[in-house]
Amino acid sequence: MTPLDEKILSSEPVYLGRLVKLYVETVELPDGNRSIREIVRHPGAVAMVPLLAGGEVVLVRQFRGAADRVLLEIPAGTLEAGEDPLAAAGRELQEEAGYRPGKLDRLGGEFTAPGYTSEFIHLFLATELEPSRLARDADEFLEVVTLPLDEALRQIETGEIQDGKTIIGLLLAARKMRR
Amino acid sequence: MTPLDEKILSSEPVYLGRLVKLYVETVELPDGNRSIREIVRHPGAVAMVPLLAGGEVVLVRQFRGAADRVLLEIPAGTLEAGEDPLAAAGRELQEEAGYRPGKLDRLGGEFTAPGYTSEFIHLFLATELEPSRLARDADEFLEVVTLPLDEALRQIETGEIQDGKTIIGLLLAARKMRR
Repeated sequence: MTPLDEKILSSEPVYLGRLVKLYVETVELPDGNRSIREIVRHPGAVAMVPLLAGGEVVLVRQFRGAADRVLLEIPAGTLEAGEDPLAAAGRELQEEAGYRPGKLDRLGGEFTAPGYTSEFIHLFLATELEPSRLARDADEFLEVVTLPLDEALRQIETGEIQDGKTIIGLLLAARKMRR
Repeated sequence: MTPLDEKILSSEPVYLGRLVKLYVETVELPDGNRSIREIVRHPGAVAMVPLLAGGEVVLVRQFRGAADRVLLEIPAGTLEAGEDPLAAAGRELQEEAGYRPGKLDRLGGEFTAPGYTSEFIHLFLATELEPSRLARDADEFLEVVTLPLDEALRQIETGEIQDGKTIIGLLLAARKMRR
């Protein structure tokens, strides 16, 4: 243990759902006192910045009930149990955006909200895209939107793009392009 | 309703915790079918990129049980009910980093994981910093770390910095500096 570590004394599942599994944990703090942590255990996800040869990115618009609005996002998906992130990235890109990537380069990754969820998103730059569509989940309704990367970056500055993984993916892709 | 919107038919609280409030909602999809959505309702948060006159950023290291590791993050905090994000940013910066900002500029914001949480983080650039410390929550254990902004950006590229709001805040601050 480092001097910042907490020790889990007990972990109680309070809800085991389809996507969200919530645990209430009693922890021992670095000073020996106890506290309660509410933690969502999540299988992780992948998100892809699909870049066409002409410098456009392929995004998806979808209604997000949690945010109570339609958001413009990079294609993404939850990892299935034991699934390799690279394989998931190829599958999800075909399901959501209708492209198969010839090349997937790792852009990095993020813990989305480490104060209460274990979710880690693996981010990829997807290039050499070929049209190829796989069926979406039955409850997924998306619109595919193609934008110049510079216009997508502008929509981050104006606050039109508000999804965290999308902001990170686009900004990291823009930095990679400049190098 | 746009053609992408979902309609909430029922919303059942399954856990009402200190930070995490989890609801299971039955929704009507755009095609008229029904689905279940598991949604964390969160009060929102603020996060600040505190920039010293010499070009260094003030970060905090803390153990995150959900990520099972110590993460390096920008100072942040959950909004209290009805709290103004600007006021919260000033308070949290004094609690977590020990500085009062003379100036807070909006950098943007992010939905952290809109597939299942309502959390929106308001991001600020904090400058004209004066030492000023407010007491932290009893279960908060942090180390304050000061780094040149360029070094923090390098730690995003290498994957050492993995927290989503921190990656967004630092990349947006770097873009703002360049303009």
